Amino acid sequence: MAGYAEHKEDVLRSLRRIEAQVRDVQRMVAEDVHCLDVLTRVSALGADLQSCAVTLLDDHLTCCVTEAIAEGGDAAKAKVGEATLAIARLIRT
Amino acid sequence: MAGYAEHKEDVLRSLRRIEAQVRDVQRMVAEDVHCLDVLTRVSALGADLQSCAVTLLDDHLTCCVTEAIAEGGDAAKAKVGEATLAIARLIRT
Amino acid sequence: MAGYAEHKEDVLRSLRRIEAQVRDVQRMVAEDVHCLDVLTRVSALGADLQSCAVTLLDDHLTCCVTEAIAEGGDAAKAKVGEATLAIARLIRT
Amino acid sequence: MAGYAEHKEDVLRSLRRIEAQVRDVQRMVAEDVHCLDVLTRVSALGADLQSCAVTLLDDHLTCCVTEAIAEGGDAAKAKVGEATLAIARLIRT
Repeated sequence: MAGYAEHKEDVLRSLRRIEAQVRDVQRMVAEDVHCLDVLTRVSALGADLQSCAVTLLDDHLTCCVTEAIAEGGDAAKAKVGEATLAIARLIRT
Repeated sequence: MAGYAEHKEDVLRSLRRIEAQVRDVQRMVAEDVHCLDVLTRVSALGADLQSCAVTLLDDHLTCCVTEAIAEGGDAAKAKVGEATLAIARLIRT
Repeated sequence: MAGYAEHKEDVLRSLRRIEAQVRDVQRMVAEDVHCLDVLTRVSALGADLQSCAVTLLDDHLTCCVTEAIAEGGDAAKAKVGEATLAIARLIRT
Repeated sequence: MAGYAEHKEDVLRSLRRIEAQVRDVQRMVAEDVHCLDVLTRVSALGADLQSCAVTLLDDHLTCCVTEAIAEGGDAAKAKVGEATLAIARLIRT
């Protein structure tokens, strides 16, 4: 089971909202809306995408990583290492 | 005319690719794909969104801001100030 | 004990390197070095600061959060929540 | 002359404040302050570094890029291209 199982509907809802925003940006570009208005939307979209990533990360730490640590051993260490790599990728994006 | 007029098709193509990626992430979540695989995709999506923003910004500087500066006066200063605000928003996202 | 206890010397070394870079940027500005060369250095400095943050975060997850989870209970949940907040702040910076 | 010539003292002042923050983080680590308190400071420091970068960028656009565009020709295009690269680096950091 994925770590976000309990929030699956929330995650899907926020992803659908992000998809609607991307389509809205397409419509703006198709209608030649001024660059800066498009960019403002792209910034807002990026912030929503980050929030979605933070939710997924929180679920991953709360479920998958927590379970692995509770079981202990090398698997736990590996899970924390993997999580850090994912966090590093998000910080650098 | 918008600053991205000459690259309109490229911008729309990259936005459609971003939309396809968002839908792909939705499918992954619907199919309970492992959190970290979802997050890797969200990071890649964020990077593509940033590239799209940089293209729009480059077009804005090359066209709108350049034209305003060539005309000179206070309008030019205002345009540069607006562009900086948009850049600051992207850096902080 | 702090989570970074084992890597304290490494963390201090990377912070001293960051301090040296900040002083170098000051010297560049004092000597009127070209804006873009200063900005390139500021970007590199920002990337080093992010790496330092990722190291601290990894230590925090590996030590503090792992210990709290091994002990279990509400304290564990609180620790994960706190870590997520810190991660969200870093992602948004 | 560098684009930040008029704000040189402000830029130096904010860089000195950033240096003081880096030294403060060092002191916190030397005194084994809790990881998350250190990370909160590192996030604040990163935000201040970004503000400093935005100031330098604004000066660069307002002075160097504006002058090059006013003179016109290929040099202007090259200047805008260089500025975009610097912005892209800051966005990705």
